[in-house]
Amino acid sequence: MSKDTQFLVSLADDGDIPAPKEMAARLQRLTQETAIEADYYGNGGAVTELEAEAARLLGKERAVMFPTGTLANLIALRLLAGPDGARVVVHRHSHLFNDSGDNLSLLGGFTMVPLEGEGAGFSADDVAAELDRTADARVASRVGCIAMESPNRRLLGQRFAQADIKAITGLAGNRGIPLFLDGARMLIECAYSGQRPADMAAPFDIVYLSLYKYLGAPFGCVLAGSAAMLDGVFHDRRRFGGSLYQMWPAALLAKDALAGYAERWHRTRSAAEAVLALVEDQGPVTVEHIPDGTNIVRLRLPGAVLDGDKVKAAGLSQALKLPPPSADCLPVKINETWLNVEPQDLAGRLLKALGRCA
Amino acid sequence: MSKDTQFLVSLADDGDIPAPKEMAARLQRLTQETAIEADYYGNGGAVTELEAEAARLLGKERAVMFPTGTLANLIALRLLAGPDGARVVVHRHSHLFNDSGDNLSLLGGFTMVPLEGEGAGFSADDVAAELDRTADARVASRVGCIAMESPNRRLLGQRFAQADIKAITGLAGNRGIPLFLDGARMLIECAYSGQRPADMAAPFDIVYLSLYKYLGAPFGCVLAGSAAMLDGVFHDRRRFGGSLYQMWPAALLAKDALAGYAERWHRTRSAAEAVLALVEDQGPVTVEHIPDGTNIVRLRLPGAVLDGDKVKAAGLSQALKLPPPSADCLPVKINETWLNVEPQDLAGRLLKALGRCA
Amino acid sequence: MSKDTQFLVSLADDGDIPAPKEMAARLQRLTQETAIEADYYGNGGAVTELEAEAARLLGKERAVMFPTGTLANLIALRLLAGPDGARVVVHRHSHLFNDSGDNLSLLGGFTMVPLEGEGAGFSADDVAAELDRTADARVASRVGCIAMESPNRRLLGQRFAQADIKAITGLAGNRGIPLFLDGARMLIECAYSGQRPADMAAPFDIVYLSLYKYLGAPFGCVLAGSAAMLDGVFHDRRRFGGSLYQMWPAALLAKDALAGYAERWHRTRSAAEAVLALVEDQGPVTVEHIPDGTNIVRLRLPGAVLDGDKVKAAGLSQALKLPPPSADCLPVKINETWLNVEPQDLAGRLLKALGRCA
Amino acid sequence: MSKDTQFLVSLADDGDIPAPKEMAARLQRLTQETAIEADYYGNGGAVTELEAEAARLLGKERAVMFPTGTLANLIALRLLAGPDGARVVVHRHSHLFNDSGDNLSLLGGFTMVPLEGEGAGFSADDVAAELDRTADARVASRVGCIAMESPNRRLLGQRFAQADIKAITGLAGNRGIPLFLDGARMLIECAYSGQRPADMAAPFDIVYLSLYKYLGAPFGCVLAGSAAMLDGVFHDRRRFGGSLYQMWPAALLAKDALAGYAERWHRTRSAAEAVLALVEDQGPVTVEHIPDGTNIVRLRLPGAVLDGDKVKAAGLSQALKLPPPSADCLPVKINETWLNVEPQDLAGRLLKALGRCA
Repeated sequence: MSKDTQFLVSLADDGDIPAPKEMAARLQRLTQETAIEADYYGNGGAVTELEAEAARLLGKERAVMFPTGTLANLIALRLLAGPDGARVVVHRHSHLFNDSGDNLSLLGGFTMVPLEGEGAGFSADDVAAELDRTADARVASRVGCIAMESPNRRLLGQRFAQADIKAITGLAGNRGIPLFLDGARMLIECAYSGQRPADMAAPFDIVYLSLYKYLGAPFGCVLAGSAAMLDGVFHDRRRFGGSLYQMWPAALLAKDALAGYAERWHRTRSAAEAVLALVEDQGPVTVEHIPDGTNIVRLRLPGAVLDGDKVKAAGLSQALKLPPPSADCLPVKINETWLNVEPQDLAGRLLKALGRCA
Repeated sequence: MSKDTQFLVSLADDGDIPAPKEMAARLQRLTQETAIEADYYGNGGAVTELEAEAARLLGKERAVMFPTGTLANLIALRLLAGPDGARVVVHRHSHLFNDSGDNLSLLGGFTMVPLEGEGAGFSADDVAAELDRTADARVASRVGCIAMESPNRRLLGQRFAQADIKAITGLAGNRGIPLFLDGARMLIECAYSGQRPADMAAPFDIVYLSLYKYLGAPFGCVLAGSAAMLDGVFHDRRRFGGSLYQMWPAALLAKDALAGYAERWHRTRSAAEAVLALVEDQGPVTVEHIPDGTNIVRLRLPGAVLDGDKVKAAGLSQALKLPPPSADCLPVKINETWLNVEPQDLAGRLLKALGRCA
Repeated sequence: MSKDTQFLVSLADDGDIPAPKEMAARLQRLTQETAIEADYYGNGGAVTELEAEAARLLGKERAVMFPTGTLANLIALRLLAGPDGARVVVHRHSHLFNDSGDNLSLLGGFTMVPLEGEGAGFSADDVAAELDRTADARVASRVGCIAMESPNRRLLGQRFAQADIKAITGLAGNRGIPLFLDGARMLIECAYSGQRPADMAAPFDIVYLSLYKYLGAPFGCVLAGSAAMLDGVFHDRRRFGGSLYQMWPAALLAKDALAGYAERWHRTRSAAEAVLALVEDQGPVTVEHIPDGTNIVRLRLPGAVLDGDKVKAAGLSQALKLPPPSADCLPVKINETWLNVEPQDLAGRLLKALGRCA
Repeated sequence: MSKDTQFLVSLADDGDIPAPKEMAARLQRLTQETAIEADYYGNGGAVTELEAEAARLLGKERAVMFPTGTLANLIALRLLAGPDGARVVVHRHSHLFNDSGDNLSLLGGFTMVPLEGEGAGFSADDVAAELDRTADARVASRVGCIAMESPNRRLLGQRFAQADIKAITGLAGNRGIPLFLDGARMLIECAYSGQRPADMAAPFDIVYLSLYKYLGAPFGCVLAGSAAMLDGVFHDRRRFGGSLYQMWPAALLAKDALAGYAERWHRTRSAAEAVLALVEDQGPVTVEHIPDGTNIVRLRLPGAVLDGDKVKAAGLSQALKLPPPSADCLPVKINETWLNVEPQDLAGRLLKALGRCA
């Protein structure tokens, strides 16, 4: 729990993001418990230990830490699709297509081909149509990678349907096209789907996992895949400006959070279900689950016209961090901080806060 | 007429493409009629004269000749959207998105955002949605240009609806976003729509026009726009590898073809209408006009399963160049070579050829 | 002092690089002394405070923190020379030309023009010759920036002569060409030259300063310059993959080290002079100062053929970290850890260690 | 002879550049002599025939035509050094480093490493030093190609010494680094050195030869090398904007000029020697041969201060095209047009013109 923040529970984040005092205290504890070795420009020491743990968890030979997802994604695509500007199939509502500052084109020379489908996915048929269109181009072109994002941030944590992933995996295998998973929040999806992370990662050549959104690090992520692909990637990490002199503090905190995350999410889900049941039971609130969703639910106050500032203040009056509203809805995020108070207490605080929102 | 080819009339091209002997004869004639001055790396002489004529025709201050459309399009977007990798709105079935070898991304750092709509166009609402999505990106991004293609090669010569162009022009004006017209075949569209080329070009900051598809040159195109934008572009033309030592032969042939093209297309349309009426009247053939189309019609032989090689041979037996079939259809292109024989004669040849296709 | 390392004094680094336990302890102390606010993707909180302090120290309106120098340098050149591939004058033995993984070309499109001169500098005449050569190019080209590195890492900390800087500044002013200072270790140079950092930075449009080499941070650096140039650069920092979710720990440690660094270096220089005098006096060692040098001296053991492993072991036997030798020389680096033991003691340890090297 | 130009003999060019009327007449003749087939976007027909002839002449498996050297050089380096921004060793006074608009960096991501030596060459030792420096870089880097230019345009046609080429070839072979020859004017060098073109080309993986400077084409060049390397390069030729719809006119003229070029240069050299002997004999002129030179000599008028406009006019008064002067020198180029008049006549005209210059 972040004692130096203004709230006990966040309903606006995917995880517990410790405030500076709390983060420093954790580092102090972790460096005194055992002897910690620093990395050297991202190689060795605590970074290597985190990478080993991430690789194990994701069922891949090798994982490599990066300071930002923006850089990791770019370099993953270079590894998969090559440095010569291939096409990359993405979802139209994906992070890659919308939230990367278009660096795939500017710095990687890639051409993104956005597809759309039901929810967070797209179909193998749509992919096949794009492959055919590319083969049919007047000037030779090439699809170098198919990228999937699951769960999808812009689509309220929706999952890419497993059936589509399976069909696309078959197609890509036949055509020799590698697959990339933008799995920034994939451990949350696993907590909801029941899949083991290694099983979720299995169809993909490279998987990207974020370390700061819900794993307590101040920054960072990993790419996981084959050793052949990733063993030498630290050269490009440095060339592209991503080789911090030392990343061990972030690696140490993330590794600590990985231990037991599954068990904590199990408890989090139970607690959240109890809270939401109480809220729906006692208030003028509808709890809407997202189809194929994960840790986000919509709390709807029918007829209300919610105001951002008012919602924020109402939340803080109950030591809650509430998300920005959308019309008569609050897209509430479930995360480990929900364990900071008892369900009964949290439901009570939430109902009081919602009462002041409308 | 290309006497050294195997056919009298082409139904598979947008124009008369002279064979070597014929092209050399034309050059011989044109260099003897008047004193022709060579250009120096694309500047001066016959190239400057062509550029002046193209600028006049398109109602722009300045036109600049390029050896290929692939290069001209890339450089037009650099002029309009800048060299720093902006987003460019394109049609999903456009030449830019499908047939440029993805050089906009690799060499220009651009991110194409493909839209789709009815036929060859897209709506101002769809553009506005993309502008909003871009403004909403987590990492700053920018739409640097909206590109339209009309008529559209992949969509059988369909036109971008004028109403959509007008609405998009208004939107782009409000948002300060420049407009590009890929008007490779725009003179053909003008022949069908009745618009003056300068009026069709007016809403666009830069217009691209091809010189070899139906204007008799062995290669080349022009970009037309403001002098401020285009006066110094020959530096980039050279840097990007597009400064041929001399382009005067292509400029000379294209300028010659521009004189009188409108009148020739007027006669061509009349002749083609006569031919198609005769064909539909006398044969088991349906003539299907393309909605918002230009110089392409579908000749349908209901129930036939057409074979490419057979169609080709059937055509040549009547001194006709027929296009590759698609199921029971021939997508036939109208062009100046239709004037090479009398309508009655051409209709007869075409019916005989079609008789041998099925 | 890094208690959890194997040495008391490093003669192989430019500063005191705290081991993990020590670094965590410092963070713990700093977060408890005052309320620390986290940054959000590099904006706000402790990062903003560090930036303000760095800007003040360097006499510039604005400073912006980056995670790595590799990225900061690239983006500085984009700010100064533009995104369209200008020429950049550099020193042939500079970090930019030799140790950036050539990312200026690959990611920035820049063409480096390497010059050489006496030591770490080059002359205004050589720069003028390059400007003339560029003006004379067959295809238009442009020098977009002149970059200087001082002190120079590859040249044993040599300084770029002030007279040359002055002459180049005049030339660049006349031609309208911006100047960049790779001043990774410029505070060390100031400790030796007596210049105020703001005076050293004054001729340059953007100055780069490292935070981890001798300022105790685990990573990071700043660019300092005008607000007009740097206020919006966080967008590109993110787009290029350099926006860590939180950088406050590095900012906090660096800001702490900046306070009092001048006084500490003053004491360090005095202590080092005493140590080196004693060593030269008592041993078979020559102390060679580098012309226009800073914190590096060569300890020469005439006739010795030094072996890297042996040197390392000899140093550690006296709790010293010695640098890799070169022939009969040790290029020894003076830094704050020299204050960890008394001069007499350090000289004694060093002499014993050197005795075991040969 | 170009009857429609103002001069009979050019002393300012490397070859005979036909004026438009003359060029058209040649095309007319060549298309009537034999049946000429057009190429399709640079593939097939007369272009393929020229490529076969160039490959034979240069002793390579395959040659591919390009519209400009600027593009051909860029693509050659991509073939040799890859698309991922390697280092390329070049001469400081080379066309690549000075006259390509820096497109190797902007469009290819390459880092040029300029070397200097005696005249147009550099030594194997200097290359080895650069390879070592690169191997020693903090961030992994790679020399992907060594490029040599011979004869060198900026250095008055000087040759890269064969001994240096041989030593560099050995070094490059050991290190696995491919070699590129910018041999734009290599056939002129062969005329002077007596080497067969295939022997001069042999050490190089790819050789570049210009077609318009002295081979009568309006534009164009070829790259020659192995079939494995060049067979698929037309895709990149198109993607980079270099696929003209038809290049057959340029191919046809160049192929015609290649036949008999060796014999013509043999006669040209003899005629030029006679002319220069007469001139030196009869006038106040010194003929200075360039060390390791080719077809350029300096005519020095001791003490004269030559003016460009005056020189030009003096030349034209004798139907000569004179080059721009440099101080008291005229850097005169020998070429096939020297055969247009008898040596005695040409020497007389030249002496008269020189008399009017001073």
